[in-house]
Amino acid sequence: MIPRYTRPEMAAIWSPESRFGIWLEIETLAAEAMENLGIIPEGTTAAVREKAAFEVDRIDEIEREVKHDVIAFLTNVAEHVGEPARFLHLGMTSSDVLDTCLNVQMVRAADLLLTGIDRVLAALEKRAFEHKLTPTIGRSHGIHAEPTTFGVKLATFHAEFQRARARLLIAREEVATCAISGAVGTFANIDPKIEAHVAEKLGLAIEPVSTQVIPRDRHAMYFAVLGVIASSIERLATEVRHLQRTEVLEAEEYFSAGQKGSSAMPHKRNPVLTENLTGLARLVRSAVTPALENVALWHERDISHSSVERGIGPDATVHLDFALHRLAGVVENLVVYPERMLKTLNSMGGLHNSQRVLLALVEAGNSREDSYRMVQRNAMKTWGGEGPLLDLLQKDEDVMAKLTKEQLEDLFDLDYHFKQVDTIFERVFGRS
Amino acid sequence: MIPRYTRPEMAAIWSPESRFGIWLEIETLAAEAMENLGIIPEGTTAAVREKAAFEVDRIDEIEREVKHDVIAFLTNVAEHVGEPARFLHLGMTSSDVLDTCLNVQMVRAADLLLTGIDRVLAALEKRAFEHKLTPTIGRSHGIHAEPTTFGVKLATFHAEFQRARARLLIAREEVATCAISGAVGTFANIDPKIEAHVAEKLGLAIEPVSTQVIPRDRHAMYFAVLGVIASSIERLATEVRHLQRTEVLEAEEYFSAGQKGSSAMPHKRNPVLTENLTGLARLVRSAVTPALENVALWHERDISHSSVERGIGPDATVHLDFALHRLAGVVENLVVYPERMLKTLNSMGGLHNSQRVLLALVEAGNSREDSYRMVQRNAMKTWGGEGPLLDLLQKDEDVMAKLTKEQLEDLFDLDYHFKQVDTIFERVFGRS
Amino acid sequence: MIPRYTRPEMAAIWSPESRFGIWLEIETLAAEAMENLGIIPEGTTAAVREKAAFEVDRIDEIEREVKHDVIAFLTNVAEHVGEPARFLHLGMTSSDVLDTCLNVQMVRAADLLLTGIDRVLAALEKRAFEHKLTPTIGRSHGIHAEPTTFGVKLATFHAEFQRARARLLIAREEVATCAISGAVGTFANIDPKIEAHVAEKLGLAIEPVSTQVIPRDRHAMYFAVLGVIASSIERLATEVRHLQRTEVLEAEEYFSAGQKGSSAMPHKRNPVLTENLTGLARLVRSAVTPALENVALWHERDISHSSVERGIGPDATVHLDFALHRLAGVVENLVVYPERMLKTLNSMGGLHNSQRVLLALVEAGNSREDSYRMVQRNAMKTWGGEGPLLDLLQKDEDVMAKLTKEQLEDLFDLDYHFKQVDTIFERVFGRS
Amino acid sequence: MIPRYTRPEMAAIWSPESRFGIWLEIETLAAEAMENLGIIPEGTTAAVREKAAFEVDRIDEIEREVKHDVIAFLTNVAEHVGEPARFLHLGMTSSDVLDTCLNVQMVRAADLLLTGIDRVLAALEKRAFEHKLTPTIGRSHGIHAEPTTFGVKLATFHAEFQRARARLLIAREEVATCAISGAVGTFANIDPKIEAHVAEKLGLAIEPVSTQVIPRDRHAMYFAVLGVIASSIERLATEVRHLQRTEVLEAEEYFSAGQKGSSAMPHKRNPVLTENLTGLARLVRSAVTPALENVALWHERDISHSSVERGIGPDATVHLDFALHRLAGVVENLVVYPERMLKTLNSMGGLHNSQRVLLALVEAGNSREDSYRMVQRNAMKTWGGEGPLLDLLQKDEDVMAKLTKEQLEDLFDLDYHFKQVDTIFERVFGRS
Repeated sequence: MIPRYTRPEMAAIWSPESRFGIWLEIETLAAEAMENLGIIPEGTTAAVREKAAFEVDRIDEIEREVKHDVIAFLTNVAEHVGEPARFLHLGMTSSDVLDTCLNVQMVRAADLLLTGIDRVLAALEKRAFEHKLTPTIGRSHGIHAEPTTFGVKLATFHAEFQRARARLLIAREEVATCAISGAVGTFANIDPKIEAHVAEKLGLAIEPVSTQVIPRDRHAMYFAVLGVIASSIERLATEVRHLQRTEVLEAEEYFSAGQKGSSAMPHKRNPVLTENLTGLARLVRSAVTPALENVALWHERDISHSSVERGIGPDATVHLDFALHRLAGVVENLVVYPERMLKTLNSMGGLHNSQRVLLALVEAGNSREDSYRMVQRNAMKTWGGEGPLLDLLQKDEDVMAKLTKEQLEDLFDLDYHFKQVDTIFERVFGRS
Repeated sequence: MIPRYTRPEMAAIWSPESRFGIWLEIETLAAEAMENLGIIPEGTTAAVREKAAFEVDRIDEIEREVKHDVIAFLTNVAEHVGEPARFLHLGMTSSDVLDTCLNVQMVRAADLLLTGIDRVLAALEKRAFEHKLTPTIGRSHGIHAEPTTFGVKLATFHAEFQRARARLLIAREEVATCAISGAVGTFANIDPKIEAHVAEKLGLAIEPVSTQVIPRDRHAMYFAVLGVIASSIERLATEVRHLQRTEVLEAEEYFSAGQKGSSAMPHKRNPVLTENLTGLARLVRSAVTPALENVALWHERDISHSSVERGIGPDATVHLDFALHRLAGVVENLVVYPERMLKTLNSMGGLHNSQRVLLALVEAGNSREDSYRMVQRNAMKTWGGEGPLLDLLQKDEDVMAKLTKEQLEDLFDLDYHFKQVDTIFERVFGRS
Repeated sequence: MIPRYTRPEMAAIWSPESRFGIWLEIETLAAEAMENLGIIPEGTTAAVREKAAFEVDRIDEIEREVKHDVIAFLTNVAEHVGEPARFLHLGMTSSDVLDTCLNVQMVRAADLLLTGIDRVLAALEKRAFEHKLTPTIGRSHGIHAEPTTFGVKLATFHAEFQRARARLLIAREEVATCAISGAVGTFANIDPKIEAHVAEKLGLAIEPVSTQVIPRDRHAMYFAVLGVIASSIERLATEVRHLQRTEVLEAEEYFSAGQKGSSAMPHKRNPVLTENLTGLARLVRSAVTPALENVALWHERDISHSSVERGIGPDATVHLDFALHRLAGVVENLVVYPERMLKTLNSMGGLHNSQRVLLALVEAGNSREDSYRMVQRNAMKTWGGEGPLLDLLQKDEDVMAKLTKEQLEDLFDLDYHFKQVDTIFERVFGRS
Repeated sequence: MIPRYTRPEMAAIWSPESRFGIWLEIETLAAEAMENLGIIPEGTTAAVREKAAFEVDRIDEIEREVKHDVIAFLTNVAEHVGEPARFLHLGMTSSDVLDTCLNVQMVRAADLLLTGIDRVLAALEKRAFEHKLTPTIGRSHGIHAEPTTFGVKLATFHAEFQRARARLLIAREEVATCAISGAVGTFANIDPKIEAHVAEKLGLAIEPVSTQVIPRDRHAMYFAVLGVIASSIERLATEVRHLQRTEVLEAEEYFSAGQKGSSAMPHKRNPVLTENLTGLARLVRSAVTPALENVALWHERDISHSSVERGIGPDATVHLDFALHRLAGVVENLVVYPERMLKTLNSMGGLHNSQRVLLALVEAGNSREDSYRMVQRNAMKTWGGEGPLLDLLQKDEDVMAKLTKEQLEDLFDLDYHFKQVDTIFERVFGRS
């Protein structure tokens, strides 16, 4: 994880302290279940709860010697707990602890990412209603098409992040499992009731069947979802980058008073946050392929997935978390220029209404061919800079023979395009 | 799509005939809605239904001229329908037709893929129960670990393909939407009721808000799910490849009587089907990244996604469909060698029981250190080829001072490892 | 390969006729070498050369029976050649034929791609010189920065495609090898001289050591290079898409007279070719990861690479070939609007010169702080729409106290920015 | 970068100290050139050289305020240098420093990676000659095919890492460029001679034309090469993992005396290093796609590449560096079991010689069909466990009617397969 793209909350989930803390929780809960089942002496869990502690440095020190992280951890814990520590981990494998812990971390990461998405959603909703009827030109292929509103534009992103939220819940569910099944997953040396107990206490589902390790298709799905969300971030970031470019400048990222653009060039406010988000999206997505390659472990398990997860586990969640909050900030503080939007919308002399005129002429009884010719000859003049289309049409006798001045003006009414904005808002926000 | 990895059912979904057929269905349903709303003359839909037809060659011919596929299609349909055809497509954009059609195709593809998964699941369940208690050695890191059963091994794949099925249902839902929203998605020239009507008749949900195009995060998610499923196929294929290798040969792909391996070498039966599945998994997964890159279209839409989808749409679904059926066939016909499994399991002289002996010695009152030494000195002899571990232990006076012959034999009881197989089967199959 | 993105020349390389033709060439050359070495009867090669033929349908028919493509091919050839055919393929494996053939195809594909790159280079060079001194604003972060020329812009792409060319030559060399080494590559049953002979005649290098198959790191490198070239195509396509957007419109893809944009909206000329190229770049790049995954075959070989290559071999080369020619066409016919470029450049009121003024004031003895303040207060006015920066500065007494009118005007001289254009052109094109 | 997969030498290249040190070097060299050209006062460079220093913490502190890394750096340097510092960076942009520095780092990383490859090559060569004639069975599809030697096996990897080395040199050359070209790369405010001077002193080529930033196709190629090398590592790692599996055990990773496998199971030595390498290969490869996506920056530059490079720059080089040395260690210390190899080779009763017998029978005048039947009936018996093929053939009267006992024994001569090993070694190592 790159420090400057890291929020401490998410980093904390992946810290050694956090990891060992979860290990201890798992071991203690397993002991509790064993005690309940009469497998280990009464009082063991209480003793562990009272005295258990660990030190990251000490664990590292022991690991350098024994070359086994879970053994190092248990040894360190035993240094604190004493005698009762020997009842910990009975019949369990390292994977029981490691894999359940990883899933706890991924669930916590998902929960934190959900708050990030919620912040993005809230920002989008607020700004969408603020600009519900702010006219702006819709663009297909980068070319002016027909009018829409800036609120509708934001509504499309809100709907997309609602889907992102739903997907993240699915991703969370994918990895919210607990496996305490012992060597090669047969429960030969550990009662399945222990797994059930730990799972319940940790708020996880039991893994129906594991092969010592929790199957990696779950994690692949999780990272794939992160990749999709990253791509949605990229879409919104790209929109802002387009809107901020000098020739468009319909919106721009917030610039603090003190912040210098480029020395003496006041227009040089660069959309660096959204460009950065574009890059972060690429980084997050890069976790998807290795996660997919991690699925096909050999036989009951190999350890090839581990190094991959040491990388993509923290990196993808940390960078996505940072990106969501950066994105939310961009939306919350986005400086919007409605006048510029309107000016841009009108800059084509009303050409975007040519189709409506065409249809009106057909409706008024002209053949489609004649109507097309009438519209086009005036549209070409507008395009050539000879004036707004409405003015030119009003001077065209053939057109005026079929349409009244009022009818014609109606066809250039901007509000016409916005009559379904309420419908769209109802669909997206449940209110309008 | 590569012909030899194509089943005609899936190819049919992506044929021009199929595509134009869906276009016609969408246009007709939209006309029906418009007629209901009194927008176009009564009887239009009936006329269209009666006379509408198209010819792929004719459409291609027109497209070469007008360079627009939907116009070419409508022109060809008009050649059959005549006058009423002019009421088709009113207020709609090409994207309304193209994107809704793509989603219909992707839903149909998902449905077909579901039947493939169901066949895999059925095969896995049948073979799992057949080998529910067939002992086989579990392997971690490719090294013999502890016993499991071949049925449990298959159960892990069944559970994984159950998840694949659930994911595919999610993927299907992701793309099961219909958008008939006109230019830049504002419904300015088309009543949202028309979209609702078409959606309902096609069994789709309405797209809450579109930007002329249906948002591509939906499709990204769909292809990501296909990628995860492909990886699960790879895991099972890899397992079979391992089991069939000469030194293991615990199972092999079915060889028809007539089929020649390699001329005069009867052992030369290659796991070519599962190797092929490994490659197909890579191919299917290769659709994920471009699908993710397709999400960030510019403004209300650009057309960069289209060429990508012309490739990955058919390719990923066709190859995955083929792979699922090939995989099902592999499982259905897999030749399993229980004797060989047992022989392999025993080939280490019972070393996999050393931990149980260790625990028994501790329980019998030995210190952990002493117990370890006793077990290890005998285990090393077994490893060195001096005989099965049980025999050696029985000759070790220190061991026999603590354990009876019977107790010792019990520790080598294979069934001990299988006592939770029913539990696992109940969890996975809901029966045991 | 998607028919509409396929040029027949490249498709031909991957046709069955082409493939079997290469097989025949390899088998005949191998026979020739064996004859020279006295391994097979004199006259065999001549007989084969005279009579050898094959029919794709017949080979398919035989393959359905024997389930082995090379045997089917040899059987069909034997039907034409008769008796001498039994001396073909002696001591060889299928891989000797298949892998050498694949490499021949990939070399031919590279050669064809090189002609595509050359066409792109020629177009870029021609247009670069045409616009060597056409002023245009350089943009960083999408924001106006300092002036450059459209020719320099094109020069950067020329330099990039020169690198693409050099990389493609490397990719070609990577796969230009021939392996005729028999089972597991030991030459036990085939003299290495035969390999040397076939290699030489085919213009290939011998593969120093193969494991029956030609090592797939070679092919991975080849596809990686195609992926890098695709990304360079995307960069140029993205540039054109930006230049064509309504608010910029400094250049646009050629529109044929007959070609309709969007009915009556003359400005609706969409950059569909470059959007399409953006998508094709994604498709070509999607071959890279599976090609990398193909490298780690098991032991001396497995067949998992084969299905992947049946897909990405033709697809990546065909689509890249098409993309290069489409790109060349875009560049050749690009409609450039120098007046618009100049207008855009000047649209910021000369703010891009503020830094030069700042430096001049410092040089004239002002402190950096004072200079900055003087420039900034005027720049802010220009940005606020109060007039061009030069005019405002000329009215600023503090500024005029330090700089003469002439000095000031010099600082706004556009040519100042272009004084090194010749240097750049010399570097890129070897001439200016 | 993951600490446990990081060697300090490579990490040092990416440290802030290292980065700022390179920045200082670039700025000083640029000043030197300016001084030579008479642009800045004589003695400036000497003064800078004498006094220049920086403190990472101080730079961070300033950056938090000014939000610009290069300005923060220059400010800190000025605190040490005093007055002459104002002649630093004249006419330069941040990119001139940042991009040239990145390339210096990537070149240094490549140099370090080359020493890693050299260590792998040396280890492979040593072990290959050690086992030049150690017989082992070659396997296609995981199935025993024909004999080869363990030395030949290693030779194939040596040849592959020779190619890796050559590719890395190309990757190094790709990024060994220097750009000091000022805003939008026009050299308007900086003499190209300065770039030439800095480039020469840093051992770099000048970048023929840049757009303020050094074009990212260079970096994409670099990371693509790292991805290919990672895949070659995976191939060798996979080979070792196969060889170490319990049923094969022809070689295994070195286990230190003290190192515990799994408590009391002496056979439980897991190939954890090569499994780890498999995972690291996936991680390194994951840099390729984002690097490709970085190429298409907008216009003259955007900053989206930066966050990606902050991740993949250190990560891919650090992990690959670690992987190469881990791999070299695995090869250097690999425990090879020639007896087990021989035993495995012979475990099929000599079936791998059946083809040679077949050919000999044909040569002796039998029809191919008869020969095939004779061989096959005996091969099937061997496969069924009735004895080695040679024994059975010697009891087959039809066979013995055509071949002498001696001829037959010759056909089972193992050395026959190794007669070209010298040739192969000459090709790969230049000696045999």
